[in-house]
Amino acid sequence: MKWLIIQFLGTSAGTPTRSRGLPSVLVYDGRRYILLDCGEGTQYRLLQVGVSVCRIDIVLITHLHGDHVFGLPGLISSMALLGRVKNLKIFGPVGLLDMLESCIKFLNTLPFKVEIFEIEDFNDTNPKIILAEDDLEISCIKTMHSTTNFAYRLRWYIPLGKFKPEVAKKLNIPTRYWKLLHTGHVVTLEDGRIIRPEDVVELRRRQPLTIVYTGDTAPCENVVEISKDADVLIHEATFSGDEKPEDVWSQGHSRTIDAANIAARANVKMLILTHISARYEGLEDKLLEEARRYFKNTYIAYDLQKFYIEPY
Amino acid sequence: MKWLIIQFLGTSAGTPTRSRGLPSVLVYDGRRYILLDCGEGTQYRLLQVGVSVCRIDIVLITHLHGDHVFGLPGLISSMALLGRVKNLKIFGPVGLLDMLESCIKFLNTLPFKVEIFEIEDFNDTNPKIILAEDDLEISCIKTMHSTTNFAYRLRWYIPLGKFKPEVAKKLNIPTRYWKLLHTGHVVTLEDGRIIRPEDVVELRRRQPLTIVYTGDTAPCENVVEISKDADVLIHEATFSGDEKPEDVWSQGHSRTIDAANIAARANVKMLILTHISARYEGLEDKLLEEARRYFKNTYIAYDLQKFYIEPY
Repeated sequence: MKWLIIQFLGTSAGTPTRSRGLPSVLVYDGRRYILLDCGEGTQYRLLQVGVSVCRIDIVLITHLHGDHVFGLPGLISSMALLGRVKNLKIFGPVGLLDMLESCIKFLNTLPFKVEIFEIEDFNDTNPKIILAEDDLEISCIKTMHSTTNFAYRLRWYIPLGKFKPEVAKKLNIPTRYWKLLHTGHVVTLEDGRIIRPEDVVELRRRQPLTIVYTGDTAPCENVVEISKDADVLIHEATFSGDEKPEDVWSQGHSRTIDAANIAARANVKMLILTHISARYEGLEDKLLEEARRYFKNTYIAYDLQKFYIEPY
Repeated sequence: MKWLIIQFLGTSAGTPTRSRGLPSVLVYDGRRYILLDCGEGTQYRLLQVGVSVCRIDIVLITHLHGDHVFGLPGLISSMALLGRVKNLKIFGPVGLLDMLESCIKFLNTLPFKVEIFEIEDFNDTNPKIILAEDDLEISCIKTMHSTTNFAYRLRWYIPLGKFKPEVAKKLNIPTRYWKLLHTGHVVTLEDGRIIRPEDVVELRRRQPLTIVYTGDTAPCENVVEISKDADVLIHEATFSGDEKPEDVWSQGHSRTIDAANIAARANVKMLILTHISARYEGLEDKLLEEARRYFKNTYIAYDLQKFYIEPY
């Protein structure tokens, strides 16, 4: 992987503004297009950035509030009209299927298959793996919001550096484990020995490439847990640090400084704030300043902004 | 009424294009804002034209295909977030309520009342009145489409000219009928006499101000019927006149020349074509030429284009 591209399609909270559309983030890993949330207007943004709706492979919906999901029926409908044939995978909380089915009564006669995976509510503090496919693993964890919201972690098992076959041979590690070790998996051999990537790889990076997207949440331990050492944490920051925490948290939202504190505690490399309330239109510099006091490598997302994440 | 403003918010068919959004037309009569259809992205267009979603009074949905209705859940959701208090009236085919309810589970706790009027399918060739409120009367009729689609007629009973009280007195017409006659109603008196506006008004125009919006339809007698003598007919024209009629009609759509023929037969004053398929991007001049061969006063709608309709 040369780089991972994260492009923000919509960065507002609740209602759109003149400059910010409803939440959606497009992630491209060189072979798959993944949408994180799908607010109304997402298909328009895709048109703008020149990515056909037919190229989307996976959609991850954090929760069922309208601003995060009302772009989905139209997206699917346009895919059908444009003759999509490949399957589409959609993950989200229970209720998603019902919502989509009543919008798209013709769901059964679509020219492609929509695989909807409803994630049962769970309170475990360990992330749950919902997809493992080649190099990509997607997990989720529940956050603190007024309705069930899942933060998603996307993890690419890319080569961590140069593999040292002579060392692997010396350690008697069967070749079938080499690729796993090379791409960041810890392996337990038949004889009980635990082998770590660093034992056989000249490390250029220490762990899989990882990004986390919170959706809506109050500052929350589960987000620290799922974001541990991530390359990028995309955290909601609906409000400024000037707001009273109890007012913000009770609504299931975060302030800029809450997100920055979470980023620092999770030891992430980069923090991107999104889901910015309309009241801060034009005041983004102030929000950024607040957050950077607690976590230096912070950015505030703008619509259509692209981040190129280099693995090495 | 000084003039009626018709502003096109979205003019595409099925999927959005770079220049055309999904169908919606905003009508403003000086006191009410009325939306004709509400495709995805309508609330964004309202932001662009500077009309708050909270100011919309009535929404008329022609049919339940996604491109005409998927903007509605988000519109209602934004109204709620922006603190709307006044009632909203929505008219559309049966199934609308179910669709909206599954999208907006919190419909009951909205800070304003959404009055949803589902129009039962009917095959009468006479328009059916669905709203009569002060000077405004709205009727509908079924068109020919692949799902139940209603064309809507909006009729404003405005003064047709100068009222002649001396004539009304001479004819012994009770004063309670004067306003009705003045604004274009035909009145049957208790003694059986039928009085027409032209009997007591110095006519500057012959009938109420009338606009018709078809939604999706093949060329259809019911549209001629409901559009008779209208000031403006907004007719779908998904395809060019070059297409084979049977291919277009069997899909429940019209060609430019079909719409023009209907306009001519209905004797309307002005025809506006909308619901233009993406394949004609940049070819609008050709479409217009086709239609004008059959009906001279034809226009092709563009997104955000405004038409000022002067009653006199």
